[in-house]
Amino acid sequence: MKFGLFGGAVRRGETADSASYGDFINFVVAADKLDFASIFIVEHHFSGIGQVSASLSLLTYLAAKTEKIRLGTAVTILPWHNPILLAEQAATLDLLSGGRLDFGIGKGYRDLEFKGFCIPKEEAQERFDEALEIIFKAWTSSERFSYHSERWNFEDIIVEPEIVQKPMPPIWTGAGTPSSIQRVAKNGFNLLLDQYGSFDLTRERVDVFRQACDEVGRTYNPAEVGLTRAIVLTGSKKETAVAKEARAKRSGAMSKFGRLPGLPEEPQSYADGSAPVDDAAIIGEPGEVIERVMELREFGVEYVLTLATGTPESLNNFAEKIMPAFADEKQSLGSAAQ
Amino acid sequence: MKFGLFGGAVRRGETADSASYGDFINFVVAADKLDFASIFIVEHHFSGIGQVSASLSLLTYLAAKTEKIRLGTAVTILPWHNPILLAEQAATLDLLSGGRLDFGIGKGYRDLEFKGFCIPKEEAQERFDEALEIIFKAWTSSERFSYHSERWNFEDIIVEPEIVQKPMPPIWTGAGTPSSIQRVAKNGFNLLLDQYGSFDLTRERVDVFRQACDEVGRTYNPAEVGLTRAIVLTGSKKETAVAKEARAKRSGAMSKFGRLPGLPEEPQSYADGSAPVDDAAIIGEPGEVIERVMELREFGVEYVLTLATGTPESLNNFAEKIMPAFADEKQSLGSAAQ
Repeated sequence: MKFGLFGGAVRRGETADSASYGDFINFVVAADKLDFASIFIVEHHFSGIGQVSASLSLLTYLAAKTEKIRLGTAVTILPWHNPILLAEQAATLDLLSGGRLDFGIGKGYRDLEFKGFCIPKEEAQERFDEALEIIFKAWTSSERFSYHSERWNFEDIIVEPEIVQKPMPPIWTGAGTPSSIQRVAKNGFNLLLDQYGSFDLTRERVDVFRQACDEVGRTYNPAEVGLTRAIVLTGSKKETAVAKEARAKRSGAMSKFGRLPGLPEEPQSYADGSAPVDDAAIIGEPGEVIERVMELREFGVEYVLTLATGTPESLNNFAEKIMPAFADEKQSLGSAAQ
Repeated sequence: MKFGLFGGAVRRGETADSASYGDFINFVVAADKLDFASIFIVEHHFSGIGQVSASLSLLTYLAAKTEKIRLGTAVTILPWHNPILLAEQAATLDLLSGGRLDFGIGKGYRDLEFKGFCIPKEEAQERFDEALEIIFKAWTSSERFSYHSERWNFEDIIVEPEIVQKPMPPIWTGAGTPSSIQRVAKNGFNLLLDQYGSFDLTRERVDVFRQACDEVGRTYNPAEVGLTRAIVLTGSKKETAVAKEARAKRSGAMSKFGRLPGLPEEPQSYADGSAPVDDAAIIGEPGEVIERVMELREFGVEYVLTLATGTPESLNNFAEKIMPAFADEKQSLGSAAQ
């Protein structure tokens, strides 16, 4: 079992579980020292609550402040970016971090962002596919190349600096429905599973992914499935109740941005903040949390991204009280690199 | 008299005075400790010799590694970028560095880059002007706004995080001809003067800028004029001769990328690498270098950006042997912030 982090800073306004950039940086620096495996950072634009917009920039800053922790986007929304500038920025991060980039990508889901960039949502998949093709070409070409389409035109270019992880960094993408999960398996990408899916739903998704891997002749590697979870360690039953209530409120607040892609329409989904989230979030005293995480392991989840909330102290608490229960297996999991 | 640095790392290939990213970072970290005022980093694409492409990314990394040094682009080529993503990245750097961003901007000059991005050179000025308008709007709007043109469309957006330096970071732009220098004065921007202009030409340019400032009712502030110079400290006449020859060769190698914008067509210009550069570069033993820098001061240059070449040791040498000659006046120069 391996633990990473998922989240981001906020600058403007406050939400229940978000930190200022400064606090967030201290948090990630502490996580690096405590042997958390990764930090995956969201990218959002025009949120009005100051969510991270330049996630590669923030990760590049964190690259300088940390030694070992892997630096992930979760996810970079390809349709917003010039694919060549993005390839350059990601390669620069990969270089400066000594090959610690985990490149998480998505096609976008927030209406506010499609509207803001004036990009029709119907074009999201097409733009995503095209951008990815260009980025892969940019990272793997050691010679100059050209690319021409209705949308993008590049002539006789070579992207510098070279990417450090060869042939390219691990590619992560979120998925929820069977067909989208099957596509991830087929494309050879790593799978990000969201924080809102119940345990049962998560088990189903892992099964779909495992089976899809089998079908395309890919070995199922649990290091290539990252499951985001809200994990809150409490000291008493009363604290547990308070934390569960706060979690439900927070989910409700985030639901205004719309539904995550690939999620089935069911009560526990992202868009329905009023639904009970108890079964997705892991909230409780250390023994309870360990037990819940072991349940995940039973159905094949061995890489959990806990929400990057709280303080360096709470992180330390997690490292002291939860990680040792899984310490023996940590080494056997291997690298998440493709 | 204030000293900053100008340059960039390279990843692929070698030129006489370029460092790897790792060496370059060590160099800037040393400069920060030695009280150099700034590092201005170039942005180039598809150079084939690995020049820095994601200059804001590299500066964001350096923000984490340094304490006081100002972090400049020299320059960010606006026509290559989505202005809103650029505004977000620059604001993120300004936030993470505690307000140390110096935003240098240009419209591009290398044919290789116009060709690479498939952007007609004739559109450079128009694209530059439009991008700048959008970026300024993005940084100064505390409410959501929309922008629509043939080229860019944004609806109901707000750029986050907020810029830290209010109303915005210092804006720097290169200029060489009288009309372009006058425009810089009129726009309220800071002026970057290039490393290839002779002493006489530099004096003329400063005079043009000073007069243009008078004409628009702007007080001439020498902290708002950054002059780039190749400065090489030698230990003997023989070393001086060798360094001058190396400098001439290097200028020749760079001339293949084309002429910097705003430069008059004359022998000492950027594009003509075979021309003598002795009168632009400052190469010599400490006493000679101090004398030359004092000449610059006499005609109003009090902010010199030395080429970021050499090693932390040579930087230390510069700080020990040159800076003390100008130490008394350092405080009187004040900030370069607008």
